[in-house]
Amino acid sequence: MTQHPLDFLFHPRSIGLAGVSADLSRPNLAVRFIESLRKFGYKGQIYPLHPSGGEVYGMKIYANVKDVPGPMDYVISAVSARYTPQLVADCAVKGVKAVHLFTSGYSEIEDEIGGKLEAEVLKIARKGGVRLIGPNCMGIYCPSSGMTFAQDFNDQHGFPKRPGPLGLISQSGGNSIYAVRAGSGRGVFFSKVISYGNAADLNETDFLEYMADDPDTRIIGMYIEGVKNGRRFMQALKRAAAIKPVIINKAGATDGGARACATHTSAVAGSAAIWQGLLKQAGAIQVDSMDELIDMSVTLLRLPLPAGKRAVVIGTGGGLGVESADQIISAGLKLPLLTPSIRKEICSIYGTEAGSMYRNPVDAPPFGGIENTVKAVSVAAASDKVDLLILHFAFDIWAMVSRSEPRYFFTEMIEGIQSKVKKPMAMVLHYTTELAAKQSADELQKKWVDMGLPVYHSIARAASAINRYIHWSRHFKGKKP
Amino acid sequence: MTQHPLDFLFHPRSIGLAGVSADLSRPNLAVRFIESLRKFGYKGQIYPLHPSGGEVYGMKIYANVKDVPGPMDYVISAVSARYTPQLVADCAVKGVKAVHLFTSGYSEIEDEIGGKLEAEVLKIARKGGVRLIGPNCMGIYCPSSGMTFAQDFNDQHGFPKRPGPLGLISQSGGNSIYAVRAGSGRGVFFSKVISYGNAADLNETDFLEYMADDPDTRIIGMYIEGVKNGRRFMQALKRAAAIKPVIINKAGATDGGARACATHTSAVAGSAAIWQGLLKQAGAIQVDSMDELIDMSVTLLRLPLPAGKRAVVIGTGGGLGVESADQIISAGLKLPLLTPSIRKEICSIYGTEAGSMYRNPVDAPPFGGIENTVKAVSVAAASDKVDLLILHFAFDIWAMVSRSEPRYFFTEMIEGIQSKVKKPMAMVLHYTTELAAKQSADELQKKWVDMGLPVYHSIARAASAINRYIHWSRHFKGKKP
Repeated sequence: MTQHPLDFLFHPRSIGLAGVSADLSRPNLAVRFIESLRKFGYKGQIYPLHPSGGEVYGMKIYANVKDVPGPMDYVISAVSARYTPQLVADCAVKGVKAVHLFTSGYSEIEDEIGGKLEAEVLKIARKGGVRLIGPNCMGIYCPSSGMTFAQDFNDQHGFPKRPGPLGLISQSGGNSIYAVRAGSGRGVFFSKVISYGNAADLNETDFLEYMADDPDTRIIGMYIEGVKNGRRFMQALKRAAAIKPVIINKAGATDGGARACATHTSAVAGSAAIWQGLLKQAGAIQVDSMDELIDMSVTLLRLPLPAGKRAVVIGTGGGLGVESADQIISAGLKLPLLTPSIRKEICSIYGTEAGSMYRNPVDAPPFGGIENTVKAVSVAAASDKVDLLILHFAFDIWAMVSRSEPRYFFTEMIEGIQSKVKKPMAMVLHYTTELAAKQSADELQKKWVDMGLPVYHSIARAASAINRYIHWSRHFKGKKP
Repeated sequence: MTQHPLDFLFHPRSIGLAGVSADLSRPNLAVRFIESLRKFGYKGQIYPLHPSGGEVYGMKIYANVKDVPGPMDYVISAVSARYTPQLVADCAVKGVKAVHLFTSGYSEIEDEIGGKLEAEVLKIARKGGVRLIGPNCMGIYCPSSGMTFAQDFNDQHGFPKRPGPLGLISQSGGNSIYAVRAGSGRGVFFSKVISYGNAADLNETDFLEYMADDPDTRIIGMYIEGVKNGRRFMQALKRAAAIKPVIINKAGATDGGARACATHTSAVAGSAAIWQGLLKQAGAIQVDSMDELIDMSVTLLRLPLPAGKRAVVIGTGGGLGVESADQIISAGLKLPLLTPSIRKEICSIYGTEAGSMYRNPVDAPPFGGIENTVKAVSVAAASDKVDLLILHFAFDIWAMVSRSEPRYFFTEMIEGIQSKVKKPMAMVLHYTTELAAKQSADELQKKWVDMGLPVYHSIARAASAINRYIHWSRHFKGKKP
């Protein structure tokens, strides 16, 4: 297998950091990048750069790119925008292959000067054979090579050292950071994440083409505000979406949002309706937020494809059951009425139907016992009218039990259910308003994620992701992730 | 002022608990009610009841209602449904004014027998002059008289002892419990909460009429699955909504939801479109979830009415800014472009526009300094194009700062802003995926709630509640809450 022409971006032999200060008493973002890379386990050489020279963390600070002794493949710039034309020119001379412009102050600002500066830097880069990431972005997170732009390396809600199948391309830095943390907490790990900002040189289409061919990436996620070349993007998208699932969060659906895109990353957002049509036609899965992007990834990676749309919903809480029914139907799934014989069977397990509902949604009696609930869920799952189960666990709706009791119920219950139920099963942890409830939900999420289960935070969001999954799978001819 | 005929429900001189067991080694829900009432500070006499007699917590258990020595105004029944006809008959003889049937197993179950039993109990109650709450419900929470159905009495996310202006009428017990906890965490306290279940006797309309006239209730909230008498309900609603704000969460908008209503509380849900039209016509504020009901209460109680719909959104996070713009426009609010002179003023405060947006949304530079952000917000707020501010605070989008730093920024920032900004200001705490972030958000919420501010958990939900508030206020001629 030949290497993709952009593969070098993710495996630099050495990284230079421009804009490092030797004075550690004041926050310096280039220094934070160095700390992050070292702690994350980046194995290559790191070269701090600053005209004043000096030392940082025992490393020599080079006054000029040209002074760096060894080869330098990649440079992260945290210097002011006005110094970047010279920096990129020096990098070209040095043979640097790519510069990540963390620096902002280019086409995203309203004054003409920003756009001109961006054009100037681009011209210098092109002439010198240097590729640019950014400006105005976080750059690359790639666990397999130790590249990162954050400092919290835990597997749960952090930037894990553990790699995974999701390749994320995000025009927004904050959204990419949030997605990694939200994803890792739910068992979604990343092959590569690129926050690419203004996209002066390398843009969404370049990265999409790369991800399509990247063997480490089994799902592609994108947050985009606008695209540089619509025709080329759509061609790349069609090709990528035929190979692997591509989930797209396209921002700027309203005039206000579109205007915000322009001032954020100088992107031209385009009409929401046109985008919707084009994305569907290309076979991409459209979502409306980073949370939905993660929901979709959880579904693709962790929910076995249901044979159909018929869901049975089980949990405690009557009002919740009613709400869930509305949400499941609105999302496009079906809620088959359980047959009288199944209802009677569940009824006989619990001994009564008083205060409960067994027709689907199933409102399990709060004090019905763990063993009985495991049995009842198994009976509902066995119905040939049922394609999947949505099990929901609410915390702050219990009045007569202590805060911790639901957690113990739920833990035992799921251990019993998982060994008995063979149909796809989505877990929803919700109705957490109190901090202790949030903490309990977090603990259960960790447990269930480790068991390989897909965990969601609302019935509406679970149902919506599952419905999209089923629709997408009907047209997708590529390899399932 | 004369007493409302239902006022006795909320101030019983004594409460009997039917179904108490002397054996404390097994969970008994009637005993939990006793514990709750005692801990909550109910001042009247409590009479435990059970045919076997005995003692519980040093109190005599009376074998029969008739044996109770003093007057008994109110009885909570946790006995099996089949014993309730006799219980209610005994209560009538004793002169009990109201029985709360916590007991379930009536019209909500599918078998005919449940419906028949409910009709029988109702007949006995009517004949004996006893009013019924329920069956199949949690009953009454009334902080001023010490009535409650939960045991967590803290002011934040619990069932507070502190009373407040929201009167809640909920067909679902779980939804009423969740609403009290979600509300109290956000500074919304309750005059009275009634969970009324199947509504065999007293129904949504009776309670709505009561709340309309109750001087302690300044806002009415309702969760309803169906109504017993549509015409009477609409008359009561029109009258109530002319006096005070009435927020209604009507469940069962889809066929599946409507079917779930029938099995939950035997309610006939009716068409969603018809409901929407009727509620609007009556002047009620319609919401779609208990969270939205609390959002709306927060807005009515804590946000001064904005002079118009023009919002400025300020926070850190470019992708978030774009998202917020879309959500604000979609909710119906306006997002005026800040004038070039204001943009320049903000630009000069921060010294640069690099990597930020100042046109609205305002994406404040993450390291722009607290004092500068206070100044920038004041400048934006002073614009005569701006009617209200939405300030948002995201936690898990920060890569280069420690988890706790945003919390300190945000705390100081708000103290500065509150003294300088005179326009209505909505606070959004969001993008919390990690537990430490949730904890920080919770702490800030507590602080800001104590400062009197309205706090929300997403920009979309804040904007939606504020837009509804503005529309409602244009037609409302009653007294503002």
